[in-house]
Amino acid sequence: MTSEPIRVFVTGGTFDKAYNELNGQLFFQDTHVPEMLRLGRCLLDAHVSALMMIDSLEMTEDDRRAIAAECRNASETRIVITHGTDTMVETATHLGREIQGKTVVLTGAMIPYKFGSSDGMFNLGSALAFVQTLPQGVYIAMNGRCFAWNRVRKNKEKGIFEAV
Amino acid sequence: MTSEPIRVFVTGGTFDKAYNELNGQLFFQDTHVPEMLRLGRCLLDAHVSALMMIDSLEMTEDDRRAIAAECRNASETRIVITHGTDTMVETATHLGREIQGKTVVLTGAMIPYKFGSSDGMFNLGSALAFVQTLPQGVYIAMNGRCFAWNRVRKNKEKGIFEAV
Amino acid sequence: MTSEPIRVFVTGGTFDKAYNELNGQLFFQDTHVPEMLRLGRCLLDAHVSALMMIDSLEMTEDDRRAIAAECRNASETRIVITHGTDTMVETATHLGREIQGKTVVLTGAMIPYKFGSSDGMFNLGSALAFVQTLPQGVYIAMNGRCFAWNRVRKNKEKGIFEAV
Amino acid sequence: MTSEPIRVFVTGGTFDKAYNELNGQLFFQDTHVPEMLRLGRCLLDAHVSALMMIDSLEMTEDDRRAIAAECRNASETRIVITHGTDTMVETATHLGREIQGKTVVLTGAMIPYKFGSSDGMFNLGSALAFVQTLPQGVYIAMNGRCFAWNRVRKNKEKGIFEAV
Repeated sequence: MTSEPIRVFVTGGTFDKAYNELNGQLFFQDTHVPEMLRLGRCLLDAHVSALMMIDSLEMTEDDRRAIAAECRNASETRIVITHGTDTMVETATHLGREIQGKTVVLTGAMIPYKFGSSDGMFNLGSALAFVQTLPQGVYIAMNGRCFAWNRVRKNKEKGIFEAV
Repeated sequence: MTSEPIRVFVTGGTFDKAYNELNGQLFFQDTHVPEMLRLGRCLLDAHVSALMMIDSLEMTEDDRRAIAAECRNASETRIVITHGTDTMVETATHLGREIQGKTVVLTGAMIPYKFGSSDGMFNLGSALAFVQTLPQGVYIAMNGRCFAWNRVRKNKEKGIFEAV
Repeated sequence: MTSEPIRVFVTGGTFDKAYNELNGQLFFQDTHVPEMLRLGRCLLDAHVSALMMIDSLEMTEDDRRAIAAECRNASETRIVITHGTDTMVETATHLGREIQGKTVVLTGAMIPYKFGSSDGMFNLGSALAFVQTLPQGVYIAMNGRCFAWNRVRKNKEKGIFEAV
Repeated sequence: MTSEPIRVFVTGGTFDKAYNELNGQLFFQDTHVPEMLRLGRCLLDAHVSALMMIDSLEMTEDDRRAIAAECRNASETRIVITHGTDTMVETATHLGREIQGKTVVLTGAMIPYKFGSSDGMFNLGSALAFVQTLPQGVYIAMNGRCFAWNRVRKNKEKGIFEAV
């Protein structure tokens, strides 16, 4: 409902995994988020910045501090972060303690966008809606649901996020 | 953020157009919405009901009265309606005048889901997020944006929804 | 097995149908055949020329004479033609009577390439293989099978090609 | 052009790699070849048997002897084998020396079928056409081209097969 500008910070994660046909490995190349926004015919005033392109298992505390700094320094007060699911809760926790006065929504995917059957478009659509409507705070939006940063965990057996 | 149940009413529209390989025409068969929710790994308590499977250009005032009755009779107070874009504003207007005490979000797609490049997953994800977070009222969610029923028109030249 | 150059003549047909998101109709815009060859990582010396972009139900005898003239005038002796399935047999018959000294394989699709579930890639791959290996003559390659032009009909109820 | 039955032996390879959403790794589950044949609306008398589901880098000489035995024991004289590209030439060489009186075509993909942009459908279509039309012998069909087993190598830098 807001017409405020939105910042989308890309950090990598399953969203953006690509298949290297020379060695058969998954890897990170460029982010697919701008292509996803075009495919979704997104007309929001959304600006995409890739901060890093990594598997979230490799994300360090330094990386999280860098993300928090970017959130603080962004001129926008509404921010979506694409992130690997494995440590999404850790990053949300870091941001939840560090960021004031902004609405930050982390989202990701269980299946890479480039696989035809990805949940990425669905999650990105929902994250961009939640970020426009939720009050200030840090959230995780996955599987159609949205959780406050301190009320969620990843159930690694089931591959889903659930309330705590 | 709500854990309330959500009703999804399907009325057809581009979302659900399929290709008839025997005669080369687009047609409506079964709804793809449950498949889309599975693909999005949606974990909301969402119940899908197909009310009709039609092109919204063929929707009559009787159809709109039937949709309004279904919204009123639903036990859920949060309702998403998938709808063709051509007359989505007309149906939203009808519902906006008739429905009280519920949050109703209409959404659709410019490209059929079964085409690989559909905006449907993105729109469905955003509609399900908006319906959880917006106050009572009737809305249209398209292209990442959400409009109150009496503040939107379809720009048919551009194929987008815009504020009035 | 041949390393001879191959000409691909595009005439339209289901292969190339696109979805017009402004009016909800299927239409012909540009051919997808070069994109399909890239996706197939095709390394043949294949040159694509779009002769026309039409539904084969609209193909006239003049069009068929024009296609035959292009086949005769082509420097290549191995030619694939993408064609709508409805009158593919008629065009094959015309070419079978008119073309000598060349291997010509017509192929098409039951589902547009731009639909995720198209048979187009499979048929194009098989047509390009048949054209390299079959002796001179005019053929139809569909559903993994290949028929001489005077030994095939389209079963319109089943949407398949079968031997006569 | 033949109406003879065709055997399709599945050994795994990139064709069949799937994405494990719980751990983010590629793995082998069930073969996608029957689904690919359905999508291609294949009407050949083709019988699919999965012999193994492995990355071809892990294929042993025992595995190759088992594949050769299956080729010899098959009642069909026309056989397609889906295989990882990394050691496809090694297996073709083994079969070329061991198999007499049959037409055997190995094929594969550079991108998993489950990725929307796979070359798998194109290669499978071409392999099934080559196996119907080529004389007895062992071949590799990739990228629209077909090579006798002793005239081909994989260029691992470019990810393509080329004549030697």
